[in-house]
Amino acid sequence: MKNYISHDEWCIVENGFHPENNEITESLMSLGNGRMGQRGNFEERYTGKTLLGNYVAGVYFPDKTRVGWWKNGYPNYFAKVLNACNWVGIDVQIGDEMLDLGKCQIDEFRRVLNMKEGVLERTVKVTLSGGRQLSIHTKRFCSMADDESGAISYSLVPLNFSAECIITPFLDGNIRNRDSNYDESFWNEIAKESGDHAGYLTLETKENPYGVEQFRVTTGMKFEIKINGEPTQLESQTFTSEKYVSGSIKCTLKESDNLTIYKYAVNLSSANYAADELLPSAKTYIDRISEKGFDQMYAEHVQVWADKWAKNDIVIEGNVAAQQGIRFNIFHLGQTYTGEDERLNIGPKGFTGEKYGGGTYWDTEAYCIPFYLATAEHKVARNLLVYRHKHLQKAIENAEKLGFSDGAALYPMVTMNGEECHNEWEITFEEIHRNGAIAYAIYDYTRYTGDQSYLSEYGLEVLIGISRFWKQRITWSTDRNKYVMLGVTGPNEYENNVNNNWYTNYIAFWTLRYTLENVSRLWAEDTQALNEVIHKTGLKLNKELGEWKHIVESMYFPYDENRKVFLQQQGFLDKELLTVDDISDHRPINQKWSWDRILRSCFIKQADVLQGLYFFEDEFDSETVRRNFAFYEPMTVHESSLSPCVHAILAAGIGLKEKAYEMYVRTARLDLDDYNNDTQDGLHITSMAGTWMSIVKGFAGQRVKDGVLVLNPYVPEQWNAYSFRIGFRGSWLKISVKKREVIIENTSETALKLLVKGREIAVGSLETVVV
Amino acid sequence: MKNYISHDEWCIVENGFHPENNEITESLMSLGNGRMGQRGNFEERYTGKTLLGNYVAGVYFPDKTRVGWWKNGYPNYFAKVLNACNWVGIDVQIGDEMLDLGKCQIDEFRRVLNMKEGVLERTVKVTLSGGRQLSIHTKRFCSMADDESGAISYSLVPLNFSAECIITPFLDGNIRNRDSNYDESFWNEIAKESGDHAGYLTLETKENPYGVEQFRVTTGMKFEIKINGEPTQLESQTFTSEKYVSGSIKCTLKESDNLTIYKYAVNLSSANYAADELLPSAKTYIDRISEKGFDQMYAEHVQVWADKWAKNDIVIEGNVAAQQGIRFNIFHLGQTYTGEDERLNIGPKGFTGEKYGGGTYWDTEAYCIPFYLATAEHKVARNLLVYRHKHLQKAIENAEKLGFSDGAALYPMVTMNGEECHNEWEITFEEIHRNGAIAYAIYDYTRYTGDQSYLSEYGLEVLIGISRFWKQRITWSTDRNKYVMLGVTGPNEYENNVNNNWYTNYIAFWTLRYTLENVSRLWAEDTQALNEVIHKTGLKLNKELGEWKHIVESMYFPYDENRKVFLQQQGFLDKELLTVDDISDHRPINQKWSWDRILRSCFIKQADVLQGLYFFEDEFDSETVRRNFAFYEPMTVHESSLSPCVHAILAAGIGLKEKAYEMYVRTARLDLDDYNNDTQDGLHITSMAGTWMSIVKGFAGQRVKDGVLVLNPYVPEQWNAYSFRIGFRGSWLKISVKKREVIIENTSETALKLLVKGREIAVGSLETVVV
Repeated sequence: MKNYISHDEWCIVENGFHPENNEITESLMSLGNGRMGQRGNFEERYTGKTLLGNYVAGVYFPDKTRVGWWKNGYPNYFAKVLNACNWVGIDVQIGDEMLDLGKCQIDEFRRVLNMKEGVLERTVKVTLSGGRQLSIHTKRFCSMADDESGAISYSLVPLNFSAECIITPFLDGNIRNRDSNYDESFWNEIAKESGDHAGYLTLETKENPYGVEQFRVTTGMKFEIKINGEPTQLESQTFTSEKYVSGSIKCTLKESDNLTIYKYAVNLSSANYAADELLPSAKTYIDRISEKGFDQMYAEHVQVWADKWAKNDIVIEGNVAAQQGIRFNIFHLGQTYTGEDERLNIGPKGFTGEKYGGGTYWDTEAYCIPFYLATAEHKVARNLLVYRHKHLQKAIENAEKLGFSDGAALYPMVTMNGEECHNEWEITFEEIHRNGAIAYAIYDYTRYTGDQSYLSEYGLEVLIGISRFWKQRITWSTDRNKYVMLGVTGPNEYENNVNNNWYTNYIAFWTLRYTLENVSRLWAEDTQALNEVIHKTGLKLNKELGEWKHIVESMYFPYDENRKVFLQQQGFLDKELLTVDDISDHRPINQKWSWDRILRSCFIKQADVLQGLYFFEDEFDSETVRRNFAFYEPMTVHESSLSPCVHAILAAGIGLKEKAYEMYVRTARLDLDDYNNDTQDGLHITSMAGTWMSIVKGFAGQRVKDGVLVLNPYVPEQWNAYSFRIGFRGSWLKISVKKREVIIENTSETALKLLVKGREIAVGSLETVVV
Repeated sequence: MKNYISHDEWCIVENGFHPENNEITESLMSLGNGRMGQRGNFEERYTGKTLLGNYVAGVYFPDKTRVGWWKNGYPNYFAKVLNACNWVGIDVQIGDEMLDLGKCQIDEFRRVLNMKEGVLERTVKVTLSGGRQLSIHTKRFCSMADDESGAISYSLVPLNFSAECIITPFLDGNIRNRDSNYDESFWNEIAKESGDHAGYLTLETKENPYGVEQFRVTTGMKFEIKINGEPTQLESQTFTSEKYVSGSIKCTLKESDNLTIYKYAVNLSSANYAADELLPSAKTYIDRISEKGFDQMYAEHVQVWADKWAKNDIVIEGNVAAQQGIRFNIFHLGQTYTGEDERLNIGPKGFTGEKYGGGTYWDTEAYCIPFYLATAEHKVARNLLVYRHKHLQKAIENAEKLGFSDGAALYPMVTMNGEECHNEWEITFEEIHRNGAIAYAIYDYTRYTGDQSYLSEYGLEVLIGISRFWKQRITWSTDRNKYVMLGVTGPNEYENNVNNNWYTNYIAFWTLRYTLENVSRLWAEDTQALNEVIHKTGLKLNKELGEWKHIVESMYFPYDENRKVFLQQQGFLDKELLTVDDISDHRPINQKWSWDRILRSCFIKQADVLQGLYFFEDEFDSETVRRNFAFYEPMTVHESSLSPCVHAILAAGIGLKEKAYEMYVRTARLDLDDYNNDTQDGLHITSMAGTWMSIVKGFAGQRVKDGVLVLNPYVPEQWNAYSFRIGFRGSWLKISVKKREVIIENTSETALKLLVKGREIAVGSLETVVV
């Protein structure tokens, strides 16, 4: 736990420099716009602790797999989001001294991420050698309006001296991923160009033996300098070296002069431009934004954020820390994925670090989709589904590599391009419940939006591939006279290679049933659409549906008759059943215990049976939820960032308000307070959606039942009130929950009927109703 | 399967050069003497496929662990036997041409490992450039009499030309382990010295951050040259470079002249000499052997082999391939471990390659000890037990690293110095049955030798440490009202992280019972010895023995009431029960199936339940063995070299003679015929003891019951007769098994009573009895 970030409703504030926490602050203050991302690094040189991070969405490199002992089926590479050209760099030389906050005396320091406007500002006063005092003010954003660009305003004022200054904005491609398996550089220089007040650098990912696309990225910069608000006509001296372009401006600053450099940058990738178009496009792009100018760019950028906040803000009254926490989560989700491009997805760290390779996990389907469904246009969540549809063929090939056939699809544990990247057998090959989450997301989307078209156009194909996988992965146990699923790892990764994990068995059973239902529905409602799906997938109606039906009828679910709880897996009761309170000195067990000790303990990393009860709560009565929650939660150590939110929602649903709030607190300020001691690696982006869910689905009890929006809101004791905004089938609502009333404000022109605490409420166009 | 090695009763013969198989031949023709080992490399330069291999017993390096994903508890390094200074090298230059069998035309080639005498010979005729024909004859051995030395005789005859020749014997320490994790060199040069006809090179293993001892090895050489049998007085030209020393002799050879160089070499290690004594000792040593001369050294070496063969030879009549196979196995076992030094052990590849790091596995206890018990003085097996006793403290520390306490000992999966080296969680932390094998070996030794002194002096301490581990590793299942053992990997490594593996549960139960028995026995027979053990171990008689007794009384063993077979592990019957015949196209599954598919299949890598029935056959009736064999063997793919021998012994015991022979064949010529396509990496040394057991314990039914040697021999149909030699409690017997009779020849002066086919037989001193 760290407490150096000041509490503020809209800003993340570092008051006074904390060099020991600098990598944490850099993560917290990352900026992005869905196309690119940038950690909160300093523009000027810094010799202290720092992880320089610049990421371009969709640009990755297949890093050769590193293992101790090879297992058949391992993928040859781990595709990693690439740390790319540094476009924010500005070297500042005052007289003979290079400005470096790692070396000079810092008199004042304030770094602020303003989440309302999506801007990072820094105000610093330093004393250089000879007692020379310098004031610095910077402002930087990744434009949400022009989403392949960013801009910086960087001002210097010598407070008590005059000196010659050299200002050197640069582009630097000499960057390595910190997590490179073999400490290799992944970039080659293709071209560079420098001109007056401008520079361009084109890098390409290195050749690889895996047939993975090579990406080119052209980074361009343009800059202008004003002294005391007046543009200067000073010429820039260009300098280039391997993967490096800069332009220096030399000038003499007098005491109190204000020098401001405006640096504009673009990052264009070959994912979006033909290779020979990159450089000319970069030039056109940068001319366009630099002509617009910093203030105009900024105004347009802020407007996009204003529109976003109008759809997704949550206001908490009576608790600044909670307010800051939830906005922090919403802000990062908003700048990580904008839903514009169905080739993109949400890495566990977004654009804030490189851990976990920046690939796509089941986190997207299980945690992020509900957030985007409720806070953005439908196409945003739809594009996340289309992303998986585009990978269907690769998922079929992944399954084939493991011995499956006939169109069975296993989506990867981690992927960039649809191919599996992960290489731990117990996860890569066995944590197959992820396949179920991808099916569930189709259901979730359809249930929320009421839009059946996705299912017939894309979804059913995916469901059929996944169902075929389950069919082959499930085996008949003669001994048990039931279908079983052997050798899996459930969501609780503190158990590996278990038989009949209840959650995995259930989600497989559910997928088969849901696929059967949808085939039947299309059969009745849209034969032509069904025929197209049959044509594309080669589905054998009699044979395959019959087999699936038989599994649905005879699937085995481990259950304890005494306690009347589902068993996380067969044999769970052989364990010594302790509670987390029994091992308080031993936590976190993932740091204090050997792996085997973790595995044979009863302790649970994250919701497993409870994840299933959360997904499928309509299929279980609340007594069942209560019993299972009472059995499993006390054994759960929540050592995954994805765990507390599910427990918060379930606890709220069964009236355990204290527990719900405790779980909410664990998720809401996870990164801000560096709860798990790992924020320096980047933020837990995907779990941020869980925090949002803890409020909206937890405290506010938001559900969709039979096509109707349902709310069962209450205000946690620790707050006075809260409000949130969601969209539902064309309406946009602001819902204010107070201790004694709920105010539903329809900010859209679409009327809506909903159920609030069991009462049917109609809210007309632009109307407000108090319940 | 490869068939290029000619069948011969005493020799391994490569007729005609097979460069494509050269690394295999090098493995097969490895030489050793317990202190050092040398692959069958050529002396002269060779640019073809080769794995140069020189190993010095007990000299290793801690290579930094390489994993994909770190798990708590992994060791920091993997200690690896070191590929050391090449002492056999002799460069031969004829005129301008460097002799290289990879480049010149080979007219005749014969490489022979004579196992009777332990010598490698090579007869080659080549045509060099210009049609110059050269004949080469070499002879090399690692002296069993002077076990830190080796000698080479290398002869050249120009058949149709005269030329100036340069002969350059050298020592070369520029050697890397092929399996180095990060492709690093592990040796530093400390000193080198060259003189007339001699050279010395002292290397030291590099510094390491793990506190592991650095080893120094001084390699010395001396050489003499005879032309046509006459010593020459030619001076040698010395040359040295980094980690390299050589001496060249230049002379003119006329047609038909015979030039023979005798190269003597020693390898002294700091494990046996003070660092400053290495060089002087090497000089004294090499002076001594070179004065003795090649022929005398050779004669003494051959005498040691003659004595060995007199104790351990097996003669098979009517099947040359089988005869060659068994002698090949006995030969390599004999030269890998001589039992002189209790700090040494038997690596899976002996001195024939570097795979598996050359560390000690449970193979030693489970497979090798019975061989050495029966074919060598008791001290040989005793030293293997003492090796583990010396590591007891490290085993306690290993267990502590995983969270155990109070003197619980977990012996490592792989080790050099007692510390764990392996790094796969499912094996390192979970394949803990190895601990039981170490306890079992104490029982095996005591049963065979009748010598109780090892138990009270050393063994009981080890048993107590292991029992304490089992006590802590076993947990009470309230649900089952029994003790269970969760999260283990049994001998069948095609299942991981299972609960209640029958074999592991049984060997744990057995260890506890055996420890209790021995405490009681000492209590009655030798209180003072017991008190010493109690003093050393801090054993709490009431508490600890009481706990162990409770486990012995209430241990859970999975069992199928229908089939009346033990279950390999809880849940085994959930699997689809197929037989190996069902998947004939898919074998070997370890190459053709993904790891998860292997894990969830019923297929078994090596004896698991059956390993237990083999160890503890006295505790089960033969119907039980028969039922379990009939259930498990058809599912067993025998993809471990250690599997067939156990099945051969069990099959022979229950009268399945065809199956027993089939299993014998799989083990006997495993390396000679390169059955598993991996002989190039080195030989399967530890499984060779299993081959010996297949005959002696299998076909001959050798057991020890109540202190009496028992034989139940038969002759496999495919053979006419066979004989073997074993020692038992001071007697040495030659046992000849013929179709209709068994001849017992007591070659020692100690009389013996034994049971042959149920009949009590007395064989007096130097007497022969026909049964």
